[in-house]
Amino acid sequence: MVKKNKKISCAILIIGNEILSGRTKDQNVSYLASWLNNNLGIKIEEVRIVPDVEKKIIDSVLHLSKNYNYVLTTGGIGPTHDDITAKSVSKAFKKKYSYHKEAFAILKKYYGKKFDDPRKKMSKMPKGSKLIHNPSSAAPGFIIKNVICLPGVPSILKSMTNNLRQFLKPGIKIYSLTVSAQTVESKIAKGLEAVQKKYKRFVEIGSYPFFRLGRIGVSVVIRSSNKNSLQSCHKDIIKVIKNKKIKMFKGI
Amino acid sequence: MVKKNKKISCAILIIGNEILSGRTKDQNVSYLASWLNNNLGIKIEEVRIVPDVEKKIIDSVLHLSKNYNYVLTTGGIGPTHDDITAKSVSKAFKKKYSYHKEAFAILKKYYGKKFDDPRKKMSKMPKGSKLIHNPSSAAPGFIIKNVICLPGVPSILKSMTNNLRQFLKPGIKIYSLTVSAQTVESKIAKGLEAVQKKYKRFVEIGSYPFFRLGRIGVSVVIRSSNKNSLQSCHKDIIKVIKNKKIKMFKGI
Repeated sequence: MVKKNKKISCAILIIGNEILSGRTKDQNVSYLASWLNNNLGIKIEEVRIVPDVEKKIIDSVLHLSKNYNYVLTTGGIGPTHDDITAKSVSKAFKKKYSYHKEAFAILKKYYGKKFDDPRKKMSKMPKGSKLIHNPSSAAPGFIIKNVICLPGVPSILKSMTNNLRQFLKPGIKIYSLTVSAQTVESKIAKGLEAVQKKYKRFVEIGSYPFFRLGRIGVSVVIRSSNKNSLQSCHKDIIKVIKNKKIKMFKGI
Repeated sequence: MVKKNKKISCAILIIGNEILSGRTKDQNVSYLASWLNNNLGIKIEEVRIVPDVEKKIIDSVLHLSKNYNYVLTTGGIGPTHDDITAKSVSKAFKKKYSYHKEAFAILKKYYGKKFDDPRKKMSKMPKGSKLIHNPSSAAPGFIIKNVICLPGVPSILKSMTNNLRQFLKPGIKIYSLTVSAQTVESKIAKGLEAVQKKYKRFVEIGSYPFFRLGRIGVSVVIRSSNKNSLQSCHKDIIKVIKNKKIKMFKGI
């Protein structure tokens, strides 16, 4: 008998003043959410963005690591004074913040004679961490307990996800279908509510108005780990829309 | 004597499964962060993204409203079953969730004969709320205690910020300057750290590597509410870069 996967939850902790000040737009949440669901059936259930402030990082790491199966942090693992993620996570878990032998060797090889103190700092992390290898710029991420620390630069983070996979237990993949129609939300609200009630525990129905390409409409997104429920719910949603003689859009 | 403004802090609570699933990329944080700082000197100190789940919304609203001067929520104030922000905030503050007379009248006028039950729902909110008027699609946001509930659709949210202004006490504006240079972070890390130490309490220095337009470089962002400290720190940063004979980029 095949052992059934359990639900696996994950939180993301974004560390960086540049996101809170509005200077930089986060791109990692949407990428990680899709990647985790499609590849491992892991669901993001909460995201927090905090500044480069030790206490805030520690409090968030402790809270999130207690409440979710995994915590992915992004940002703050570079060589400068404002990169304090590794040190803060060490403090959170009361682990020594020290040079990781393998990380040190990787960076030494990569930088050669240019392996200066700030770069050495990138091999300091909580004692007992395992490395998440970085194929684009060498400096590794790391995992300690259920907390995984990744860089903030989206292209580097993306290049590391394949090396992250081995550390994550797979959960239940969520499948989704979208129905888009030329309508306003209020017109289908009652119908959607009835369908949501029918599939209460099995399907999650979201309703999202849109204004694009000169078209006004609503996208109804249905999400479920059960393909049969999903298909059957999908048919019911289409019925709601057809009964109101509303035009459907294809491909959006 | 002019009364000096105090520091005013703010948190954003993004409510919506579509952001956590990766389907939709949040655009409101960066917009609100810039708008709040430039217009009112209010600083975003934390962001949370939670799903359309009552308990999570209530817990976050209570925690954030206790710890920051203001909380801005986005999303979940539309007409469908998954729009539960107003009801959840009512429960959080133990206020009756009921029709707001003025909101009801505004929506009735706007929709005329098409003012159906789902649309009526958009005028339900915590008893005692004040309205944030919505010039683009009528359905108002609201403020109760220090929590301000706004829609999730970015264009509608943007159109409402002018009507939001009157409810927010201004704080201290943060000014910023950026120095971008053709270098890697490790080369200037020690210099930046020394400058950060010198201006410890007055200036916040962030270092951000970039890879764009075929150029590799670092942007050093300095932020302060004190223009003199900012200017003087800016000069010191330029000195660090010039001493290393590093080329500076203009306009990025």
